[in-house]
Amino acid sequence: MTGSLVVIGTGPGRAELMTPATAAAIARATDLVGYGPYLARVPSQPGQCRHASDNRVELDRARHALSLAAAGRQVVVVSGGDPGVFAMAAAVFEAVEDGEPAWQDLDIRVEPGVTAMLAAAAEVGAPLGGDFCAISLSDNLKAWSTVERRLAAAAEADFVIALYNPASRARPHQLGRAFERLRVVKAAATPVLFVRAAGTPEVTVLATTLAEADPARADMRTLVIVGASRTRRIGRWVYTPRSER
Amino acid sequence: MTGSLVVIGTGPGRAELMTPATAAAIARATDLVGYGPYLARVPSQPGQCRHASDNRVELDRARHALSLAAAGRQVVVVSGGDPGVFAMAAAVFEAVEDGEPAWQDLDIRVEPGVTAMLAAAAEVGAPLGGDFCAISLSDNLKAWSTVERRLAAAAEADFVIALYNPASRARPHQLGRAFERLRVVKAAATPVLFVRAAGTPEVTVLATTLAEADPARADMRTLVIVGASRTRRIGRWVYTPRSER
Repeated sequence: MTGSLVVIGTGPGRAELMTPATAAAIARATDLVGYGPYLARVPSQPGQCRHASDNRVELDRARHALSLAAAGRQVVVVSGGDPGVFAMAAAVFEAVEDGEPAWQDLDIRVEPGVTAMLAAAAEVGAPLGGDFCAISLSDNLKAWSTVERRLAAAAEADFVIALYNPASRARPHQLGRAFERLRVVKAAATPVLFVRAAGTPEVTVLATTLAEADPARADMRTLVIVGASRTRRIGRWVYTPRSER
Repeated sequence: MTGSLVVIGTGPGRAELMTPATAAAIARATDLVGYGPYLARVPSQPGQCRHASDNRVELDRARHALSLAAAGRQVVVVSGGDPGVFAMAAAVFEAVEDGEPAWQDLDIRVEPGVTAMLAAAAEVGAPLGGDFCAISLSDNLKAWSTVERRLAAAAEADFVIALYNPASRARPHQLGRAFERLRVVKAAATPVLFVRAAGTPEVTVLATTLAEADPARADMRTLVIVGASRTRRIGRWVYTPRSER
């Protein structure tokens, strides 16, 4: 039997935010490969093998999934959110590039999903209403100087900025440094949103300003959005007008 | 009865890419308001009123939806993709800000969805695997100089760039000007993807380079992705490694 590999994202967490295409891919799988907490979001199915792993071993996980597919299994690699945004899809293609030549002929597909910044934005209104960018603050795989350069460029060009992976136990100081960098360019009153567990029943929202934003309010489940010059509060919502005028 | 307004996105087009939460919101609506082609994606339901409009009147459409909700209707505003990304959510909050004071007390919600760049990226691999930005090339609501400034900043800071609204009959020359601006900074071999009708059975993909990218290949249904310095082709896929090293 010919194997296959589908990279999926569960969305932000609630089953109602996972697409039917993703649910169908999961239902067809013989093997699920992923980080434990994301796998736990997927209902178990008799006869399906689960291969849970730690969060820091994406490339090993991708290679394992590709070997299973090459051996004829119907493999689903489980990410949170959208698999193409700071998640497993890029790791799978890295593993293909550096791996067995036969892996390039495998049936590999990516199913899109609802990524964290979209769920976070929906919780507060429409902060991504203008041009925006997404930056991961993790420096596991890139230099911090690259992060700072992108923050500066995004601020100068007046993008709304979505910050993924704003903080972890291993990196408690980066969000504070990011805010400091942004304060050089952006107004003190710029809206800043800390949206934790967006798209789940435990969601919490903290709407503040760049001057007052406290980096200690972010953890691994938080998505931080820093507004553009026109981003504003209206009643209990925050949004960015489509027009710059 | 108290009215409500939910802003939804149908996703890229296929029903399998619309979230169950969005489908449930549609099923509960008494009134659907939206641009005709997006409304046409939603199955009709007995007793539900449909208010179709032209694509260029977002603000009128938003005001109409808010009036209906204020009159006690259960209103769903229908966008394509994700409603918060170059779609109706921002227009609704603009209308709230400038409209009847009572509109600020309405029950308004936004349901996230799969936006076009995620569906387009999934069709080709994982081109959004690094930091990225999303820019609308439409200058209906912003100056072209703003677009150029953002393109230049995104290129200098080595973001992957997703271009929404790359072309329309009224704006045939902007994508060419955007490519010219990017060629000043980015390498000639930078991968450029034209993904038309992503997430639908009619999808087509053209993978080319910045040097050879022909702006005439884009239309209103096309999403254009311009790679970062490390974005590469591997077999039939295009992806951006997570690492910059």
